[in-house]
Amino acid sequence: MAPWMLDLLVLPLFYSLLLLQYSPSTFAKFQPRYFPSSITHPKSQSLHTNNKLYKTKYFTQILDHFNYNPQSYQTFQQRYLVNDTFWGGPKINAPIFVYTGNEGNIEWFAQNTGFMYDIAPEFKALLVFIEHRYYGKSIPYGGNKKKAYKNSKTLGYLSSTQALADYATLIVDLKNNLTAIDSPVIVFGGSYGGMLAAWFRLKYPHVAIGALSSSSPILQFENITSQYSFNNIITQDFRSESENCYKVIKGSWKEIEETTRTRRGLELLRKSFHICKNYISGDYLEGWLSTAFIYTAMTDYPTPSNFLAPMPAYPIKQMCKAIDNPKLGNNTFAKLYHAANIYYNYTGDVSCFDFLDDSDPHDLGGWQWQACTEMVMPTSGNNKESIFPASTYSFEGHAQYCEEAYSVKSRPTWITTEFGGHDITRVLKRFGSNIIFFNGLRDPWSGGGVLKSISKSIIALVEKEGAHHVDLRFSTNEDPEWLRDVRNREISIMKSWISEYYQNIVDSDAH
Amino acid sequence: MAPWMLDLLVLPLFYSLLLLQYSPSTFAKFQPRYFPSSITHPKSQSLHTNNKLYKTKYFTQILDHFNYNPQSYQTFQQRYLVNDTFWGGPKINAPIFVYTGNEGNIEWFAQNTGFMYDIAPEFKALLVFIEHRYYGKSIPYGGNKKKAYKNSKTLGYLSSTQALADYATLIVDLKNNLTAIDSPVIVFGGSYGGMLAAWFRLKYPHVAIGALSSSSPILQFENITSQYSFNNIITQDFRSESENCYKVIKGSWKEIEETTRTRRGLELLRKSFHICKNYISGDYLEGWLSTAFIYTAMTDYPTPSNFLAPMPAYPIKQMCKAIDNPKLGNNTFAKLYHAANIYYNYTGDVSCFDFLDDSDPHDLGGWQWQACTEMVMPTSGNNKESIFPASTYSFEGHAQYCEEAYSVKSRPTWITTEFGGHDITRVLKRFGSNIIFFNGLRDPWSGGGVLKSISKSIIALVEKEGAHHVDLRFSTNEDPEWLRDVRNREISIMKSWISEYYQNIVDSDAH
Repeated sequence: MAPWMLDLLVLPLFYSLLLLQYSPSTFAKFQPRYFPSSITHPKSQSLHTNNKLYKTKYFTQILDHFNYNPQSYQTFQQRYLVNDTFWGGPKINAPIFVYTGNEGNIEWFAQNTGFMYDIAPEFKALLVFIEHRYYGKSIPYGGNKKKAYKNSKTLGYLSSTQALADYATLIVDLKNNLTAIDSPVIVFGGSYGGMLAAWFRLKYPHVAIGALSSSSPILQFENITSQYSFNNIITQDFRSESENCYKVIKGSWKEIEETTRTRRGLELLRKSFHICKNYISGDYLEGWLSTAFIYTAMTDYPTPSNFLAPMPAYPIKQMCKAIDNPKLGNNTFAKLYHAANIYYNYTGDVSCFDFLDDSDPHDLGGWQWQACTEMVMPTSGNNKESIFPASTYSFEGHAQYCEEAYSVKSRPTWITTEFGGHDITRVLKRFGSNIIFFNGLRDPWSGGGVLKSISKSIIALVEKEGAHHVDLRFSTNEDPEWLRDVRNREISIMKSWISEYYQNIVDSDAH
Repeated sequence: MAPWMLDLLVLPLFYSLLLLQYSPSTFAKFQPRYFPSSITHPKSQSLHTNNKLYKTKYFTQILDHFNYNPQSYQTFQQRYLVNDTFWGGPKINAPIFVYTGNEGNIEWFAQNTGFMYDIAPEFKALLVFIEHRYYGKSIPYGGNKKKAYKNSKTLGYLSSTQALADYATLIVDLKNNLTAIDSPVIVFGGSYGGMLAAWFRLKYPHVAIGALSSSSPILQFENITSQYSFNNIITQDFRSESENCYKVIKGSWKEIEETTRTRRGLELLRKSFHICKNYISGDYLEGWLSTAFIYTAMTDYPTPSNFLAPMPAYPIKQMCKAIDNPKLGNNTFAKLYHAANIYYNYTGDVSCFDFLDDSDPHDLGGWQWQACTEMVMPTSGNNKESIFPASTYSFEGHAQYCEEAYSVKSRPTWITTEFGGHDITRVLKRFGSNIIFFNGLRDPWSGGGVLKSISKSIIALVEKEGAHHVDLRFSTNEDPEWLRDVRNREISIMKSWISEYYQNIVDSDAH
């Protein structure tokens, strides 16, 4: 998938990283700056709204599935996208592939989960992409986003459990309408969408026979995964490219901070990094650079990712090439500028980078709320070896931010209470089935993923060279062999689920 | 368990049965009459509040687990009962047996789930009985029941999913406090509590390693189980005792109705059935009699059930004996009166039956709300052969009642969307593990139970002679062999879960 899609999960973690590392006292001013769009490619984010990939539909969804207050009966229009080009139809119980939407406009996910399109013909599958409530066009309160996002009273219904219940309700209804009750459903998702896919299979096995859960850090909660894991992987990604590259980046933070303290230091930085004249600060610059390194690590794909804005293949290699370029001598800022350009400006169109551009064209804003309430994922720790300055994750800082931003109290133990995570191997060894967990080890999120197979049918596919849900991208002729292998394994596992399901139908009909 | 405990599940079905069969137009007046206490033994319902069975504790529980509105953060005190007499403690990871409370005062369940006490020493188990929200002392809004039950705005948080999340939250917290994180938890429950136990294992496998789900009609939703099944089983219970007994009861409804239409007919009925002078009607009398037959069928236990009020062993046999008594000749009313006495007045203490006594000493009132919102279980159909007059279940009637009583809309498909039920064998064949479903076939609810084993570890124990969760009662020396066998099988299955769990701990520690 495209890098802008990946902003989603990391962002709140990211700004809290900045917050806690650099400027605990300024986060209130600091935070909206980096959330979320300025770190992506502002000029190239338009979606292809006229395409032949899907038809747009809407489903009347209930606002709260779990209580019966009068207000729970409010409804909203949930958007979903359908492609029935390849579907074999209900008569042959042809399968239904459902993408469990992430925290963003569902059109992105549909346009960038090429794997589902690639394999639909072979499976004769119906493709359905369901948008997550409070994102894209699936906004409660009559689609009035301003109202829906006004405060915790209206935002309160944005939660993972409600989203999963939305998916269950919509799928059950859709199957009834298509008279396709016996068509097996497989859910797909990457990143947060992958977490939802895995949880959906665990909580709604009667609705989905299996889940392909790609790069889903379902263990990045509480202390199950080390808070240092995320940044350690980023560190390792760069360090494995070149020790010098790692050292230059690691040393740069101090140099930036020292520069900001000199007379005309900020002007020097502005020039060095081509920052627009409207605003600059050392903290913002550090955040801007960190973002580039973090997202490049996540999207260190083996082929160019040019869905919206062009990124080269193996972008970390490219960044380190820039940093290691002997022509730049000892000029750290020039090195970093060229590295950052790989991420922010590969086409060279941007004349200056605007730190005050906080537009949110892809409707990602809700993730901040989700991170504040339940998706409390400690990733911001940095040990001594980290490419970022040493720091420790602080739940208190997180909670304080959320209190100030939304007057809401985090529930940091809720996700493990509701979905588990501790001792997952023991718990799921003889419980549950039919989940594929894909993780690429270059992806900083992979530390919080399921990296060992749990049972015969809860299978971990781990690829050393892989990045964030690389398996879900459209296939290309340049894909390396390991990537083709991963996808082939996924296909063959899903085929086994479906044929076992069909066999069960035959068996139970024979009863 | 004692019969008064069983009122819980059947009541709303029961009144809707009456409602739809006899007097659709009068249900508003009619319904509260039969809900719920008058059908039990009003004089003998006091609980032993001073006993050595448990200590009472309270846990601060959150009002809504699934949204983040400010009001969801309200808390209430949830009661739970603990007995640690037999517990082996955290050092040996001794197990924790948790009763997932039904729709009533948890002290009832603790006092009448003797099986847990009987086996605790052998398992060195800690016993915990958690009260269901909105029942007993576990009342939101500061324990103010009047406020909590005021309307759908305050009652809205009474739902099965919230109750399950309460249990998960409380158990996780309790284990942390006891530093007993590795102690395996098994959940127990009968009737609605049994449904919760099974669903808890399915939804929270990371909290409970297994469930003993006794007489839990988890398939009595939508059209999964025939709406005629419930009353067919009651019919069969009586008919298998004596064809005459069945015929007398079946013929009595018409006779009662004809009598009410005669001059002084109601007075004749009042005298015949010893009804108090304050109120009588044909509908109420029919309801009162039906209730006796239904509950006696549910509690047709092989030993006297004298927890609160004495009932003889095999009460259906006793009822039919009364009906078949040749001394009463053709006097239908005398026959029915003596039969009803078995259920309502076995000690002979009651001088007249008060149809206007609608007290609710056991705090069962909430079930009506649950039946109106989500626990929509069609059981009131009667075919031609039924011991009750022929009738068909009508969801519309149910929905209309709920609209008038609470201004709330039923969500009749929610339970199967959230918990499944359709094609359960196919769905759970390779998903989930460690559930025992016990059902006794004399229990009218058994039709909606899981009667066939689904996998090696999702096991149905079915006992032809059994009634409603007979297995969970205290054992006695008079218990028949089949009952001892059932319990021994349950014990041995649970032992296998625990030893497998311990083996997994050893294995994962060795890793």
